[in-house]
Amino acid sequence: MPKKVAVLMGSDSDFPKIKSVLSVLSDFDVPFEVHVMSAHRTPRRVEEFVKNARSNGFGVIICAAGGAAHLAGVAASHTTLPVIGIPVATELMGGLDSLLSTVQMPGDIPVATVGIGSGGAKNAGILAVQILAIGDENLVQKLETFREKLVLRIQEKDERLQAQLESEIS
Amino acid sequence: MPKKVAVLMGSDSDFPKIKSVLSVLSDFDVPFEVHVMSAHRTPRRVEEFVKNARSNGFGVIICAAGGAAHLAGVAASHTTLPVIGIPVATELMGGLDSLLSTVQMPGDIPVATVGIGSGGAKNAGILAVQILAIGDENLVQKLETFREKLVLRIQEKDERLQAQLESEIS
Amino acid sequence: MPKKVAVLMGSDSDFPKIKSVLSVLSDFDVPFEVHVMSAHRTPRRVEEFVKNARSNGFGVIICAAGGAAHLAGVAASHTTLPVIGIPVATELMGGLDSLLSTVQMPGDIPVATVGIGSGGAKNAGILAVQILAIGDENLVQKLETFREKLVLRIQEKDERLQAQLESEIS
Amino acid sequence: MPKKVAVLMGSDSDFPKIKSVLSVLSDFDVPFEVHVMSAHRTPRRVEEFVKNARSNGFGVIICAAGGAAHLAGVAASHTTLPVIGIPVATELMGGLDSLLSTVQMPGDIPVATVGIGSGGAKNAGILAVQILAIGDENLVQKLETFREKLVLRIQEKDERLQAQLESEIS
Amino acid sequence: MPKKVAVLMGSDSDFPKIKSVLSVLSDFDVPFEVHVMSAHRTPRRVEEFVKNARSNGFGVIICAAGGAAHLAGVAASHTTLPVIGIPVATELMGGLDSLLSTVQMPGDIPVATVGIGSGGAKNAGILAVQILAIGDENLVQKLETFREKLVLRIQEKDERLQAQLESEIS
Amino acid sequence: MPKKVAVLMGSDSDFPKIKSVLSVLSDFDVPFEVHVMSAHRTPRRVEEFVKNARSNGFGVIICAAGGAAHLAGVAASHTTLPVIGIPVATELMGGLDSLLSTVQMPGDIPVATVGIGSGGAKNAGILAVQILAIGDENLVQKLETFREKLVLRIQEKDERLQAQLESEIS
Amino acid sequence: MPKKVAVLMGSDSDFPKIKSVLSVLSDFDVPFEVHVMSAHRTPRRVEEFVKNARSNGFGVIICAAGGAAHLAGVAASHTTLPVIGIPVATELMGGLDSLLSTVQMPGDIPVATVGIGSGGAKNAGILAVQILAIGDENLVQKLETFREKLVLRIQEKDERLQAQLESEIS
Amino acid sequence: MPKKVAVLMGSDSDFPKIKSVLSVLSDFDVPFEVHVMSAHRTPRRVEEFVKNARSNGFGVIICAAGGAAHLAGVAASHTTLPVIGIPVATELMGGLDSLLSTVQMPGDIPVATVGIGSGGAKNAGILAVQILAIGDENLVQKLETFREKLVLRIQEKDERLQAQLESEIS
Repeated sequence: MPKKVAVLMGSDSDFPKIKSVLSVLSDFDVPFEVHVMSAHRTPRRVEEFVKNARSNGFGVIICAAGGAAHLAGVAASHTTLPVIGIPVATELMGGLDSLLSTVQMPGDIPVATVGIGSGGAKNAGILAVQILAIGDENLVQKLETFREKLVLRIQEKDERLQAQLESEIS
Repeated sequence: MPKKVAVLMGSDSDFPKIKSVLSVLSDFDVPFEVHVMSAHRTPRRVEEFVKNARSNGFGVIICAAGGAAHLAGVAASHTTLPVIGIPVATELMGGLDSLLSTVQMPGDIPVATVGIGSGGAKNAGILAVQILAIGDENLVQKLETFREKLVLRIQEKDERLQAQLESEIS
Repeated sequence: MPKKVAVLMGSDSDFPKIKSVLSVLSDFDVPFEVHVMSAHRTPRRVEEFVKNARSNGFGVIICAAGGAAHLAGVAASHTTLPVIGIPVATELMGGLDSLLSTVQMPGDIPVATVGIGSGGAKNAGILAVQILAIGDENLVQKLETFREKLVLRIQEKDERLQAQLESEIS
Repeated sequence: MPKKVAVLMGSDSDFPKIKSVLSVLSDFDVPFEVHVMSAHRTPRRVEEFVKNARSNGFGVIICAAGGAAHLAGVAASHTTLPVIGIPVATELMGGLDSLLSTVQMPGDIPVATVGIGSGGAKNAGILAVQILAIGDENLVQKLETFREKLVLRIQEKDERLQAQLESEIS
Repeated sequence: MPKKVAVLMGSDSDFPKIKSVLSVLSDFDVPFEVHVMSAHRTPRRVEEFVKNARSNGFGVIICAAGGAAHLAGVAASHTTLPVIGIPVATELMGGLDSLLSTVQMPGDIPVATVGIGSGGAKNAGILAVQILAIGDENLVQKLETFREKLVLRIQEKDERLQAQLESEIS
Repeated sequence: MPKKVAVLMGSDSDFPKIKSVLSVLSDFDVPFEVHVMSAHRTPRRVEEFVKNARSNGFGVIICAAGGAAHLAGVAASHTTLPVIGIPVATELMGGLDSLLSTVQMPGDIPVATVGIGSGGAKNAGILAVQILAIGDENLVQKLETFREKLVLRIQEKDERLQAQLESEIS
Repeated sequence: MPKKVAVLMGSDSDFPKIKSVLSVLSDFDVPFEVHVMSAHRTPRRVEEFVKNARSNGFGVIICAAGGAAHLAGVAASHTTLPVIGIPVATELMGGLDSLLSTVQMPGDIPVATVGIGSGGAKNAGILAVQILAIGDENLVQKLETFREKLVLRIQEKDERLQAQLESEIS
Repeated sequence: MPKKVAVLMGSDSDFPKIKSVLSVLSDFDVPFEVHVMSAHRTPRRVEEFVKNARSNGFGVIICAAGGAAHLAGVAASHTTLPVIGIPVATELMGGLDSLLSTVQMPGDIPVATVGIGSGGAKNAGILAVQILAIGDENLVQKLETFREKLVLRIQEKDERLQAQLESEIS
């Protein structure tokens, strides 16, 4: 069984934005925990959880936060596990604040940053699976199957488009 | 005697950029300590220092950091003292990353942010003095004198400019 | 009793955006006044109010403005009290104009800038309390209690989330 | 004789950046005064100068400032003369802060903003001349001549380029 | 009677955005013409109109355009009258494209740029009046009266706010 | 023989920045003319040249300009030939002003925009060749050869890197 | 008969945004194909289609994509046909991500980029026609007629505006 | 022995910018290969290398590219291995183009993005090690030791600073 993934968010209002992370992890049968904890309001809680994450069976930590989005960076400061940061969209330039405060980490303490928005959240889940697949041939297989389905899905969409266009003409 | 000011910076390479903070504090006879400590590399050190800051006689904490500049926010998460954030200029849009990751704090945990660059660092020092002056008539007096000198300095510059322009004409 | 806080806004249309400042100040029993006055349309009114603010018992001045947001800077030019600037969101890059014209003050005249949006307004109130708490042990106590409640509130949210997730599974 | 133009700058370090304003005004024989005065450090001096500008024979006020560039807006708040704002380049995104805090004025109090950099400063001078030319046929004539010379200058540059290219080939 | 103001817009869809220009000009009894003409779709029409504008009794030309907003710059290339540019808001960063392509004119050919949005449009009208007032004591008088009313209007808003706050408390 | 390419630049100071356009065109034996002409200073010259471009044997027009970069858009307003725009780098956010004022053209009048900087200028040349190759099998052949050489060049660079790395180790 | 135009989009959700491309091509009687294919999910499909595009009778390839919009660049890497990129608007600064990842191509592999939004999509279609018109006098004629109609359309809009304004007055 | 890391860069001019990746990997005794290959100039080479990477013993792929930085995304389209993207700084807003075109990947195909600049490159190396450490207790140990050394290094810097400050005073 693969290691667990921890999904942390700074505010419960971010929950809808990270639901796709959970769907992905479920689809790949990767166990996970989700928690609301805030880098600024509950720093000690973050520290405790993250410090013990590896020994508690976690392999990857995913953090979602917006604005001065410090959660991923703070988590990364307390562990050597890979930390994935999801910048949550804000009103300020669509979330450039979240993106820059997540990705522009100083040397020595990386945060693996994905894109803003629903695509980004989904990708955080897939990236976590890709990381866990390093030592797990079963997950590799599932990832390959997932990719093949993507190709089919796009091809179907193209076929549906061709049908639609033809019906519009005729 | 006024409370002390703590000046923290994420990297010793930032020292030249915050020297003007120290000059200001010295000019106003406000005692201070300066420390290199990193939100990401030494999070526990930051926590310890900041948590005990009030009881150790500090009244204001100034943090300078660049990039995903979390130091001020992390400090603010460990104290109810006023925390002033100096965004250090970077190559990315001149430091917009530093500014946004310092100022865009979530509700409940404020960081009093000043501008990027040498003017900003100087202003962090003056703002600290203004805060400490809340209960210190002596500092209020010094601040008023400082302002009056500013007016004189600008007037002298204008007079010098007039002299220069006249000499250019004649 | 703590000193008063002045809350100034450039336009009465900004009132809804700064209501959280007032809630915070009320919660901490900090007395305040709110006024509509404009740096550009009523510069003399701003000057008069701000110049006399210290002698009229004010300890902090909070200014909210958007666009070429000069109100905080203009207020700061007339007093040595700490001035807190709230950049009000606009259509232009979500308020980057408001943020930059508030925070990028020249050396000598600081404005303590908080974030854009409702979190920022709330933080302006808390920062004012933190500043006034410099000489007021009672306010320090209230701030500590406020922080402890934050921790509890986040923990409750996390517990509710765990309950919700479990009920979704079962 | 045309009305005078006032050229104000927030800092004498901006003088080199506005020298082209003065050259333009001299070329068109428009009288001017240049002054160092700061919206934030010497607000009363700005108010006095600007309030009396019309009665002192000025027709246009040009203000150059950088960062949270309030000088033009503050000047505009004290007069109904046309105020031209020159945003001075800074390290932050090349002066986007200066531009936005100059141009994004609230309704009722306009600032006629020109571009950042040396072209902008020159244009501030020409715009002032264009404004003064409203009631001055002599200035209109000079502006037309100026434009005709521009055309010739560009044509000469093109001819020189053609010669250069030919000599490179042969 | 003052000179006329020409108000040009690149697309009739911009008409609602510039209606406040017309209200201002009407309020000041300044005669005007409004036209739809496009720098890119009807360049010759723009050239003809603008080239003859001065001899046709116009004193100022106002241009509103969005995106790659060339209308003001193209108009300015055909006249030595003052040209005011209104950058119309777009979806791209709230109109930063419109602003930059209006204000960043090369040296020699200025465009007097006002802010994005309804405040900007209103200001274009007021700026035109301020320019025409150069040789028109009657307009100067009206501008002064307009400013005095602004002060009263803001004071009334403040009084209403005080009344509202008191009624909320009691 | 392929049609000619016109290369226009707003200022002769841009010549070094577009030299790579000329090298590319020479390499592909595509005839060209280069001219200094300014959308704002010599609008009639631009109009004349561009209007007659097709009948004068030109197939593509390349325009390089910076700041409020209107040259490509103005050229496009006078012809139905494909117009390629090169945004020249400026101090303002590295040329974002040039890019946006070139690419954000209104519907009906396209400008084919390439990137900022030397890569962009080179690409303007290659794009012109690709366009002219529509009806010119000879140019298609040359383009294919050019691509094959690119592959070889990158492979050589990789081999050189491998050699260098090995020599560093041993 | 002119060569065909291929219109590729990364996701079928982009179809509404590129419908205007198809209208333009239909209006000019230029044959086209539309396909959903993704640079990232179906890279081989893109490669196959694009590699054979020239021999399959295509003359231009138009690609629409958003976010890290690689489709146009990837297409360009597989062909020497002219590739036109349409940056699709996103929530991040209105699509600045799409624009920059489309236009900032490295030297050697150009993408002819048009603006963001509906104007841009329309322009992609017109640009394709302009390119195909290189060797097709019939298309040139149609383009000239199209332009003449634009002029009439704008003039009608202006006339309607004049009528509306007059009716409002009377 | 851990799996290998592939380090790909679009241009050999990027080599100095990614040298710190190699130092990190060497320090952790993680085997690696470095290659110059371009998403746009040698797409087939990229495809071949990346497709076979997993079976060739690679565990992570690191890609460095600037501008319209497609290399990481293109690599990710050909493998289910974790792909780390290093956005290389450019002149355009300090590399915002590189960052956005690397991080804003569509859902399904993630790129783990690190920051711009030397810190980012270093972090790409550390992140790769953290990922490989998932199934490698030895690497976990080394990462922990690395972190402990960081703490000591910062403490030493702080001590040196205290010594320096004291010597300046005395």
